[in-house]
Amino acid sequence: MTPESFALPAYFDLGAVFVFALSGVVVAMRKGYDLIGMFFLALVTGAGGGLLRDGLFLQQGLPVLLTDPGYLAAIGAATLIGLVFGERPWYTRRGVAIIDAAGIGGFAVVGIERSLEAGLGLPAALLVGVLNGVGGSLIRDVIAGDPPLILKPGQFYALAVLVGGTAYLAMTQWLSVPVVAAAWVTILITFALRMASIEFNWSTRA
Amino acid sequence: MTPESFALPAYFDLGAVFVFALSGVVVAMRKGYDLIGMFFLALVTGAGGGLLRDGLFLQQGLPVLLTDPGYLAAIGAATLIGLVFGERPWYTRRGVAIIDAAGIGGFAVVGIERSLEAGLGLPAALLVGVLNGVGGSLIRDVIAGDPPLILKPGQFYALAVLVGGTAYLAMTQWLSVPVVAAAWVTILITFALRMASIEFNWSTRA
Amino acid sequence: MTPESFALPAYFDLGAVFVFALSGVVVAMRKGYDLIGMFFLALVTGAGGGLLRDGLFLQQGLPVLLTDPGYLAAIGAATLIGLVFGERPWYTRRGVAIIDAAGIGGFAVVGIERSLEAGLGLPAALLVGVLNGVGGSLIRDVIAGDPPLILKPGQFYALAVLVGGTAYLAMTQWLSVPVVAAAWVTILITFALRMASIEFNWSTRA
Repeated sequence: MTPESFALPAYFDLGAVFVFALSGVVVAMRKGYDLIGMFFLALVTGAGGGLLRDGLFLQQGLPVLLTDPGYLAAIGAATLIGLVFGERPWYTRRGVAIIDAAGIGGFAVVGIERSLEAGLGLPAALLVGVLNGVGGSLIRDVIAGDPPLILKPGQFYALAVLVGGTAYLAMTQWLSVPVVAAAWVTILITFALRMASIEFNWSTRA
Repeated sequence: MTPESFALPAYFDLGAVFVFALSGVVVAMRKGYDLIGMFFLALVTGAGGGLLRDGLFLQQGLPVLLTDPGYLAAIGAATLIGLVFGERPWYTRRGVAIIDAAGIGGFAVVGIERSLEAGLGLPAALLVGVLNGVGGSLIRDVIAGDPPLILKPGQFYALAVLVGGTAYLAMTQWLSVPVVAAAWVTILITFALRMASIEFNWSTRA
Repeated sequence: MTPESFALPAYFDLGAVFVFALSGVVVAMRKGYDLIGMFFLALVTGAGGGLLRDGLFLQQGLPVLLTDPGYLAAIGAATLIGLVFGERPWYTRRGVAIIDAAGIGGFAVVGIERSLEAGLGLPAALLVGVLNGVGGSLIRDVIAGDPPLILKPGQFYALAVLVGGTAYLAMTQWLSVPVVAAAWVTILITFALRMASIEFNWSTRA
């Protein structure tokens, strides 16, 4: 019964990195960046949240971005796909928000698990999970000169991650749901909440 | 005579976090962010300087933001107060600058003390103190899309922190002033300098 | 045969920090910042890439900025030189790009060497080298509110660092070129590529 036996498979983190990198590629194409700019924005968007988690928050040694070649491969693949498909009419702020929505839940789950492994309490783990989920998107928008999506009023962005992360903790800590099943449910909850808020223009304005 | 016996009470750091978080709330209201955006900007503004200090500079393990629940409580309290009081006519760049002025001295003192505990020399400790003092404000302005207050020409911002921090080091290292008294004097010096520069439009333009 | 016997002399890192700090001073003067703003932008531009490398990526203890007084001295010297010479007609985006071009190769080489010492593989070391090379420039542009130079389409910026860094690895890992000679060749290659792309408007647009 090593900690490994409960560990999330790596594809959750790699998948979220790939999805976020893709959102960086879409923004880069919309802004007319060249290939290098595309890869760079894919890199900071895909890897940014994880770097904040590993380098600024948890500090458990070298960030996974540098020790597991899968991460650079995922970011390279997203850039290649962007190149092959070229610019599309749905490369808009809305399109980026939809791609984002598919990645934030995975990041939240990975951030929470890594924080618990590092010995953090539940509220701190939830905080790291949420920041892991929204970090790459924030860095992408600040670097690309867009107003951050997560601060856009009237949409469930960070809130969707917060609800998803809380559900994940409830499932794994109190309901004994296995982590893989709980992770998929969390990704679905987060995606559904975020998409519904985009679709129906749900407002969280005070 | 443990190091603890000279340690600053936690309320200096918590107080500065609360004050900076409040400045984030004011900016968020002025920009029309919703509740989540308010809390997020309060979080990065209140905790940002300390995260730079703990996560990027000192690297002494997990940042206090994650290990002491008082920090999230202080940021939550600032958000609540913002919600209860609502938007006010003085929620301007100037109002933010005045709130800021009350927090930078506390951050400078905490940054200096933590750096000395980590074994840094006086100039490096002063540098960390100044960056701890101005970091949250810089992050707030960059994320909110405002030109950084600390780069606004003609006003004593970073300079006020630098003078305050130098005074703190002089008091505690050479004049044997107890740290708590020195910390309060530093906060007063920094606040007075910064307020006077705003009031009289003192210029540091070369 | 200690690791030190192969180590790069410190002047490569200090020189790159000085050059980047100078670019920060030039941007600060062009934007009308005061002395403090000049020093602050020189600091984050000169030290930013190294802080990302030491604090976020490699995490081998306190960043060199805080333990070696030479770094603050280099940044102070750049600020002084800026003050003494005053604003010049060539303080333009193009002038900044040329100064930059002289620093990125040195940062790339230092980033690669420190990463190899930290036990990273070649692709990860190359990644850290490139980010060390472009990091300060990115932070400068984001804080000063300029569109990041490294994302400007149609110019070899990150690509020049990537080519230079790859050449450095080829020279030192396979061709047994001594590190100091290889470092100078890398700085020349990077500078030449970047300058040629500015001069002839080479395009990397996809």
